[in-house]
Amino acid sequence: MEALKQKIIDEGKVLSDTVLKVDSFVNHQMDPVLMKQIGEEFAERFKGMGITKVLTIESSGIGPALMTALEMGVPMIFARKRKSLTLTDGLITATVRSFTKQETNEITISRDFITEGDNVLIIDDFLAVGQAALGLIEIVKQAGANPVGVGIVIEKSFQDGHRTVKETGVKLESLAKIASLENGKVQFVNEGDQQ
Amino acid sequence: MEALKQKIIDEGKVLSDTVLKVDSFVNHQMDPVLMKQIGEEFAERFKGMGITKVLTIESSGIGPALMTALEMGVPMIFARKRKSLTLTDGLITATVRSFTKQETNEITISRDFITEGDNVLIIDDFLAVGQAALGLIEIVKQAGANPVGVGIVIEKSFQDGHRTVKETGVKLESLAKIASLENGKVQFVNEGDQQ
Repeated sequence: MEALKQKIIDEGKVLSDTVLKVDSFVNHQMDPVLMKQIGEEFAERFKGMGITKVLTIESSGIGPALMTALEMGVPMIFARKRKSLTLTDGLITATVRSFTKQETNEITISRDFITEGDNVLIIDDFLAVGQAALGLIEIVKQAGANPVGVGIVIEKSFQDGHRTVKETGVKLESLAKIASLENGKVQFVNEGDQQ
Repeated sequence: MEALKQKIIDEGKVLSDTVLKVDSFVNHQMDPVLMKQIGEEFAERFKGMGITKVLTIESSGIGPALMTALEMGVPMIFARKRKSLTLTDGLITATVRSFTKQETNEITISRDFITEGDNVLIIDDFLAVGQAALGLIEIVKQAGANPVGVGIVIEKSFQDGHRTVKETGVKLESLAKIASLENGKVQFVNEGDQQ
């Protein structure tokens, strides 16, 4: 997705060989027009798959997931990273280790909102080692629903997440695929090379 | 806002005299069409005020804030409740006690995204005792910017938040104002009675 790649080039900050900071348009400040374009792009890439729900994880996934759900005309659910007092009974949980934050979270959703027969599109901002995506796929399966797609805004293709998600058999679409952050420079995957 | 009030009547669950659960369309599952309508309504209520940024707090505020920002053609920033490794320098912080979760959080934004001269519209899902709104107003002031409005999706008007925010002099607009949750029933404020 060219508009996204250009934004990464213009505003992304390479903090190390593995960390790309995109706080100016995804993770802290959000560009609503770009988010809308991202939603349109995901809706196009996953059209015709009978998707009934969009699932993401708080917080940075909410923007792209909401715009995708709006475009597809289905509800969006965001998994929570810890329990709140107003969410007690009927939870489905999975354990996820965050690569960026170096911490482990329980992620949870209510059984009320994803049920048997749902075709679920999982959306997240980043794919690194793939733990969040795997946790969300696990939650969908626990709910008796079908994980039919994983849509990622920015994939760090030099880490294991791409392979890990592909191995589940769930269709994966990443809008910007980064081959390397070495020497402080963003290099995108040459799409012709991608498996 | 009638569509919102109707949704609260149809799907809101009164858990106690002070807690209204709206997990099916705001706090866990989000209704994207309703969120878009909420964004349009806030844009209308705060038009002509020269707003340059929309500010909210993760996670449930992100949906309505993003849709408002899209409608207004400005960026959205979400304050974080704790520090992450990719946000270190140049933070502005305030302390906020959550009424629902009975816990105290540091909320933070980066100095990069709200600066002197910005006219900031604060959006949040709930107004109860007003601590989150006050914390966000404080952050905007610390940034040297102007808090010009507070837009709330659901106000619990029987708690102190309405008065507390009004006392700051910042324009407050709440789309659904709840007078009482007593006896398990949602009663809205009669708009003619509202101060």
